[in-house]
Amino acid sequence: MSLSIDLNADLGEGFGAYQLGDDRELLSLVTSANVACGFHAGDPLIMRATVEVAAARGVAIGAHPGYPDLMGFGRRELGATPREITAYLIYQIGALQAICRAAGTRLRYVKAHGALYNRAVADADAAAAIAEAVRAVDPGLTLLGLAGSQLLTAARAAGLRAASEAFADRAYSRDGSLVSRSKPGSVLHDVDAVVARTVRMVATGQVTSIDGHELRLQADSICVHGDTPGALDLLRAIRGGLTAGGVAVTPFAP
Amino acid sequence: MSLSIDLNADLGEGFGAYQLGDDRELLSLVTSANVACGFHAGDPLIMRATVEVAAARGVAIGAHPGYPDLMGFGRRELGATPREITAYLIYQIGALQAICRAAGTRLRYVKAHGALYNRAVADADAAAAIAEAVRAVDPGLTLLGLAGSQLLTAARAAGLRAASEAFADRAYSRDGSLVSRSKPGSVLHDVDAVVARTVRMVATGQVTSIDGHELRLQADSICVHGDTPGALDLLRAIRGGLTAGGVAVTPFAP
Amino acid sequence: MSLSIDLNADLGEGFGAYQLGDDRELLSLVTSANVACGFHAGDPLIMRATVEVAAARGVAIGAHPGYPDLMGFGRRELGATPREITAYLIYQIGALQAICRAAGTRLRYVKAHGALYNRAVADADAAAAIAEAVRAVDPGLTLLGLAGSQLLTAARAAGLRAASEAFADRAYSRDGSLVSRSKPGSVLHDVDAVVARTVRMVATGQVTSIDGHELRLQADSICVHGDTPGALDLLRAIRGGLTAGGVAVTPFAP
Amino acid sequence: MSLSIDLNADLGEGFGAYQLGDDRELLSLVTSANVACGFHAGDPLIMRATVEVAAARGVAIGAHPGYPDLMGFGRRELGATPREITAYLIYQIGALQAICRAAGTRLRYVKAHGALYNRAVADADAAAAIAEAVRAVDPGLTLLGLAGSQLLTAARAAGLRAASEAFADRAYSRDGSLVSRSKPGSVLHDVDAVVARTVRMVATGQVTSIDGHELRLQADSICVHGDTPGALDLLRAIRGGLTAGGVAVTPFAP
Repeated sequence: MSLSIDLNADLGEGFGAYQLGDDRELLSLVTSANVACGFHAGDPLIMRATVEVAAARGVAIGAHPGYPDLMGFGRRELGATPREITAYLIYQIGALQAICRAAGTRLRYVKAHGALYNRAVADADAAAAIAEAVRAVDPGLTLLGLAGSQLLTAARAAGLRAASEAFADRAYSRDGSLVSRSKPGSVLHDVDAVVARTVRMVATGQVTSIDGHELRLQADSICVHGDTPGALDLLRAIRGGLTAGGVAVTPFAP
Repeated sequence: MSLSIDLNADLGEGFGAYQLGDDRELLSLVTSANVACGFHAGDPLIMRATVEVAAARGVAIGAHPGYPDLMGFGRRELGATPREITAYLIYQIGALQAICRAAGTRLRYVKAHGALYNRAVADADAAAAIAEAVRAVDPGLTLLGLAGSQLLTAARAAGLRAASEAFADRAYSRDGSLVSRSKPGSVLHDVDAVVARTVRMVATGQVTSIDGHELRLQADSICVHGDTPGALDLLRAIRGGLTAGGVAVTPFAP
Repeated sequence: MSLSIDLNADLGEGFGAYQLGDDRELLSLVTSANVACGFHAGDPLIMRATVEVAAARGVAIGAHPGYPDLMGFGRRELGATPREITAYLIYQIGALQAICRAAGTRLRYVKAHGALYNRAVADADAAAAIAEAVRAVDPGLTLLGLAGSQLLTAARAAGLRAASEAFADRAYSRDGSLVSRSKPGSVLHDVDAVVARTVRMVATGQVTSIDGHELRLQADSICVHGDTPGALDLLRAIRGGLTAGGVAVTPFAP
Repeated sequence: MSLSIDLNADLGEGFGAYQLGDDRELLSLVTSANVACGFHAGDPLIMRATVEVAAARGVAIGAHPGYPDLMGFGRRELGATPREITAYLIYQIGALQAICRAAGTRLRYVKAHGALYNRAVADADAAAAIAEAVRAVDPGLTLLGLAGSQLLTAARAAGLRAASEAFADRAYSRDGSLVSRSKPGSVLHDVDAVVARTVRMVATGQVTSIDGHELRLQADSICVHGDTPGALDLLRAIRGGLTAGGVAVTPFAP
């Protein structure tokens, strides 16, 4: 039996004249691209360009819909109703799906962005609203969410394929949740430690919590970032470590 | 042989807390609904509600994409490049198509809105960009445009079904173009005259130009409006006149 | 000693092609106009038109800034930081102030809109952020808020003139807060009762709570609405009742 | 008699999470900052931060209003009416003026952005609409425009102080207009040549056209850019060359 894991990152997060992150470089390192869909970031031209490069490189394309808050980059909790969430997501997923078709490729999965992603970890109604949108657009899409989140429960309840993700450089609490970024030790900066931990996570399904407990952590994908200093170097190191550890890096979504 | 014609109108043109026109009433009178797609008007909730009511009443659903100019309601010529036009339209058509699927129905056709519609009458590059978007999203969609416009030529060149529309209450020039709204006599206000003219247009394919010439005018659909005083009454009179004249009112798009 | 009260309403809440409420009629009935400033509603053309009509009729002009959420009409709590709130308000107040100058009139007061208004009732940090914005733009402006709110406390702490408002047709809890719209009896519909209650409120500073207790309620202005069925009739009745009761209806802000 | 010139650049052109250009570095090199006002770029937080740094460094602050087209960065000609232009500019100038007041400084001048700037070179109606907005907000503001443009004529006709600008690295036609960027030779890349030409322009009021003719070119300010590769180096060289040539670099606007 061979081990494999997916690496996903946020892509296409520019807007108009604005660029964010090094999309070309990222697309040579990840296997799944979460493409912004125009509400919190992204515009039709950027979406097309991102999808075309991703398709050319064999990177799986996912929709990364968010709240309609460009000024806040989708990071503010709008308190949208479940009905609003479902409509916002159907719209954004459909837009990207058409762009994929126009590029001769297809959409594989959906991952919620920012505040909506965070809300769907514990808010069952929001999670159900997201799953309902995905199912309504295309029941063949996979829904990607935080391992252990309400979103994955809602995805399965809606008859969708659910995929879980873990974070290479974020500390975990004993209950399996992410340690808040506002707390000391929440983000790991030692490259070697991050690589070793990630390879172990994939190989054994185990990770050590911030307070020293062993957790079971089943993940189909590792979420990485490309927009912080050193992020691309870290990503290269993780990818190299996985390969050296005998782990194949391949898209999670069929 | 039996005569039939379609009546199309712009629907779902509200945004957030704003409403525009009497959508419920219009949807009981027309056979095709041009649904705004979020750029010049419309938002995901309004799009869903419009599509659901249209589907329930057997009204054919068309996408009505426009320029990204909510403040100008898509009526200002942005001078977008053909590449921008294609991307804007793929995005908007895809968004509405997903909303149709979520409502258990399907998108039938596309009609450009406002300044983009006007531009595609004579601008062959813009027309080709629109046709390319429709073809890229779904070659089974029909493209609806002004009778005699470059858009219809471009639609056929792209291998799309092209449908033509005429206006019940707008005067025509001798060359078949619409008389500009800024000129006297451009809009007909006498209800009986509008009805008689429309029935004749459908029955004989002929209309009299503003300066008294007989024109050939082949139209698959008649465009009507619901957002001006008396518009709904005029529409009821046109529909009544068509029925009384033995013309079936049915959707144009398969 | 003569009694007087102000009547304020939200004005200029359209956007682009959209209209909301009957501004012309409202401006003949109120003495203070809360003018939307482009973030949750309003655009520069509508702001200018509203200010010009208000000035011509002697209606005092106030800024009605809100969250940057046109799709949600500023009614969703964005969770903006105090620093964001202050910047958003300085921007919007400045924009309207310039429009007032261009119309040969002046801005008199500021009232927060929607979710921001509700937040500033109890959130002292948000209230301070609003007061700080008003003070920074022009310490001569009055800040209008709910009677008993944190906003009025913050206004006074910032050295601003604070003005309080009450609602003619909303029920009050025993602690002086508004009964939530989701509860039965929260909105009063009997016109005669609303008029009698309003006149008493102005004349005596007393109002009866939803559970029968007498409350002290000191208000400089009564907030009325023009966008619901019957609202203009209710407003005419209130204005008539005040006048008949010997209460002068005049702007609250110097 | 001593020579002096101003260097102006576009600043604060980010939006939300997006940054554009190296504002901190630019603000150490220019004497006037054209600050984006939220329609084509800029948001209230970025405007505040830009104004605060500019004020701290003694850089004169100008408003840089544009068309409401964030997706197109204000570079697309919207065809807005003069009435719309005036309202858009009053709004944006007022917003920035308030931000200046809140920062304890003041707005000195206005320069139109992008497509609006280009339009006002030759379109007298658009130029008058811009001048009218500036005059209506504050007749003490200076209006900065292309040397020889209709905008400067309109500024003087409106009783405003008019200031002219030239471009250090753009070729001029024999009639004093800029050579279109689409033509070969339109942008000068040789740093030494650009510096020598700029110093000569300031010292003698003369510049050589692309086809070898000597032109009179009276400019109060030199427009420079910070968002292209090498732009900051070019700017440092220009500033160094001017200083070495005995030209003081100081703000143009009183």
